[in-house]
Amino acid sequence: MSKKDYSKQDAKHHLHPFSDNAALARDGVRVMVKGKGIYVYDDEGNEIIDGMAGLWCVNIGYGRKELARVAKKQMDELPFYNTFFKTTHPAVVELSAKLSEVAPANFNHVFYTGSGSESVDTMMRMVRHYWASLGKPSKKIIIGRWNGYHGSTIGGASLGGMKGMHAQGDLPIANVVHIEQPWYYGLAKDGESADDFGIRAANWLEEKINEIGADKIAAFVGEPIQGAGGVIIPPKTYWPRIEEICRKHDILLVADEVICGFGRTGHWFGHQAMGFKPDIITTAKGLSSGYLPIGAVLVSDKVTEGLLAGGEFNHGFTYAGHPVAAAVAQKNLEILQDEGIVDRVHDKIGPYMQKRWHETFSKFKYVDDVRCEGLICGFTLVKDKATRELFPDFGTTGLMCRDIFFKHNLIMRACGDHMVAAPPLVITKKEIDTMLAIAAKCMREFEEKMDKQLAKENAAG
Amino acid sequence: MSKKDYSKQDAKHHLHPFSDNAALARDGVRVMVKGKGIYVYDDEGNEIIDGMAGLWCVNIGYGRKELARVAKKQMDELPFYNTFFKTTHPAVVELSAKLSEVAPANFNHVFYTGSGSESVDTMMRMVRHYWASLGKPSKKIIIGRWNGYHGSTIGGASLGGMKGMHAQGDLPIANVVHIEQPWYYGLAKDGESADDFGIRAANWLEEKINEIGADKIAAFVGEPIQGAGGVIIPPKTYWPRIEEICRKHDILLVADEVICGFGRTGHWFGHQAMGFKPDIITTAKGLSSGYLPIGAVLVSDKVTEGLLAGGEFNHGFTYAGHPVAAAVAQKNLEILQDEGIVDRVHDKIGPYMQKRWHETFSKFKYVDDVRCEGLICGFTLVKDKATRELFPDFGTTGLMCRDIFFKHNLIMRACGDHMVAAPPLVITKKEIDTMLAIAAKCMREFEEKMDKQLAKENAAG
Repeated sequence: MSKKDYSKQDAKHHLHPFSDNAALARDGVRVMVKGKGIYVYDDEGNEIIDGMAGLWCVNIGYGRKELARVAKKQMDELPFYNTFFKTTHPAVVELSAKLSEVAPANFNHVFYTGSGSESVDTMMRMVRHYWASLGKPSKKIIIGRWNGYHGSTIGGASLGGMKGMHAQGDLPIANVVHIEQPWYYGLAKDGESADDFGIRAANWLEEKINEIGADKIAAFVGEPIQGAGGVIIPPKTYWPRIEEICRKHDILLVADEVICGFGRTGHWFGHQAMGFKPDIITTAKGLSSGYLPIGAVLVSDKVTEGLLAGGEFNHGFTYAGHPVAAAVAQKNLEILQDEGIVDRVHDKIGPYMQKRWHETFSKFKYVDDVRCEGLICGFTLVKDKATRELFPDFGTTGLMCRDIFFKHNLIMRACGDHMVAAPPLVITKKEIDTMLAIAAKCMREFEEKMDKQLAKENAAG
Repeated sequence: MSKKDYSKQDAKHHLHPFSDNAALARDGVRVMVKGKGIYVYDDEGNEIIDGMAGLWCVNIGYGRKELARVAKKQMDELPFYNTFFKTTHPAVVELSAKLSEVAPANFNHVFYTGSGSESVDTMMRMVRHYWASLGKPSKKIIIGRWNGYHGSTIGGASLGGMKGMHAQGDLPIANVVHIEQPWYYGLAKDGESADDFGIRAANWLEEKINEIGADKIAAFVGEPIQGAGGVIIPPKTYWPRIEEICRKHDILLVADEVICGFGRTGHWFGHQAMGFKPDIITTAKGLSSGYLPIGAVLVSDKVTEGLLAGGEFNHGFTYAGHPVAAAVAQKNLEILQDEGIVDRVHDKIGPYMQKRWHETFSKFKYVDDVRCEGLICGFTLVKDKATRELFPDFGTTGLMCRDIFFKHNLIMRACGDHMVAAPPLVITKKEIDTMLAIAAKCMREFEEKMDKQLAKENAAG
């Protein structure tokens, strides 16, 4: 196929996720052909900084030959075997041992899946089965948060709080409820401190529990930092108070670490950055740095004990613990460990990014709530900083801004009007400087464009 | 890790799917280390015939070096990129073109997933979105069948008709209903012909539609041949009548081809063997021969047109069209084509298997309803052939029988008391003879054991 054909053939045969495919077929797509470090390259030879690490996943960067070698070796030996028939294989055992090593001390068991979505679905079935095993089958309601993201299965999209997803396909399902997100910038009262807001936001959980009854609730689930919701970093008081409430009411606490896990926050897991201890951890993405599809639900000793008492858990996926994906994930974790990548994010490159991120964006007129933790960063496009007035039709301005970034070969993402970045964890200081220099240029272009647009609107109004 | 350690470490850290993990940790697991052709090898040097092709997936057999080479090459070039950001990559475009080539003529678009479960969840959201796009949002009920299997997500497990799965985790969800399966052996009336039963079983769908109202129904979903339900091959009259009913009532018809797809039945898709034309085809497994996790929803032109009119479909998975998995799947399909594997199942090895399967099992006392289509085969363990009396506690006898097969290094599966096999499509006549010679020995052992057990019960009773 010639280079030019790819876009055409794509339009003829490929339905893209989360896309208006009619528009896409009309406008054409960009064809990515190569990756190296923090860069991806398209078929027209453009070198593009991937400020999103693929889709929050390529933690160790592109082009790590070790992973390709490991994949080939495993595929030559045993490309597949299932783990259903009282059978296992070395790759999944080694990955399980490694995960137990990097996870908190009370996490020693792993249930495998193929993705973050499947991890969330597994967790939802698991927490209900756990309580049933303990003789409390009425504890089945799962509490998530508005603007949380937990994948795209019927279960995961229900648990997530994305209203655009709920509007399609008869969601949410029953026995999933939501509380408001801990978004200080958007939801704080006048003069309320971040710490006070964090406590107040956590208490929404207790209000919901009191409304429903703890005897009906299985679990509370949250991303330590909301990713697709726009990198919403809760105040430091939030998660410890959430944990306290879950313990008091005997409700399982689940950290959805699909985005935050494996170094993104400068810790192995985001809950460590946010200061709380979950009972279950859902993972995917960074687990294999996206080199192959794999997910895992990490199960604490307490929950494992309950599950083991419950006999057979009638749940599982063909590709659970897939040997090739497991071998690649194991090698990926080894690289994260051996090269001290997580510590580097915590001690060096994270702090540098935070400093430079703030310096770069804070000065722009339409930018507020500049934020960064580890290497997960965001800011919000606002019409008026003084009054915290957002642009109308939340998301439209973000897309306009994102398209400017794409045009200048820097991939960042718009989540509504939150602009976010999460580059590969191996990014260097020099690369951060390059990335943010481009970003600054893009923001100047955005500012000019927005100035004109608002002037026009004022003139018309 | 030493060989012996794998089983121990597995017990310490690995929660297996569909397993009683407490029992598994106590009894130990078998460690598979290598695969070649139709054989897998454990860490004690046993050569095991894999009569299940992994888990209905390793269609081209183990040890195909071409796939490992393709995986390495793609992973070196571009190990991951997403298809969300108006972006694509050559591997997914080539796979999409190839799938459009091997699929029926009116199937030209593909929506990617990571597994059969994700394909089913996608399909469930898609059929509802399709009708909403056409201005009929009330058409949202999806009809599945008892003893059907559609994966293990909350959506898929709800749509499937496995009561053991429904009993855990608050299933099924709303707006999913079930009709009875087309199981002639178990459900036919005295003297009813297979053809008559097939029509009667299909008419259960029309009865359900009339009960609910077609204006509330989005789709009917079925496996052409039920796999995990125990290889239930419907009478030839069943599917054409089902299709007729769906057309009459304007309900989408979905073939879940996760097991039947890619040659298993001697056709590219199982619906072709069963004589009907679906609107959507869900796939996984044989798509990559299980070498890497990938699934795909094949969408007919009619459904595509509706979706394209509906704007953005708010659904998708990070690993949709994963480049490495896509490259491996593309190569797998190429091998199936170039080596004429599907035709070979249809013309040669399928008929041979069918003949030998019947010869081998029909003569046994506790075996009835011996059946085989392409290379998907089953028989049912029954207490009394004359009266079609099943053994009590459906499934217990199957497991006992399965364990005898495992002991003799032949992997077959018990689905309840249905014993099933689905070997790699590359199996030779000689290998079929070897496999069935072992199977016959196992069945003699089973028969002796069962004779003794029943004699004891009779003496006690």
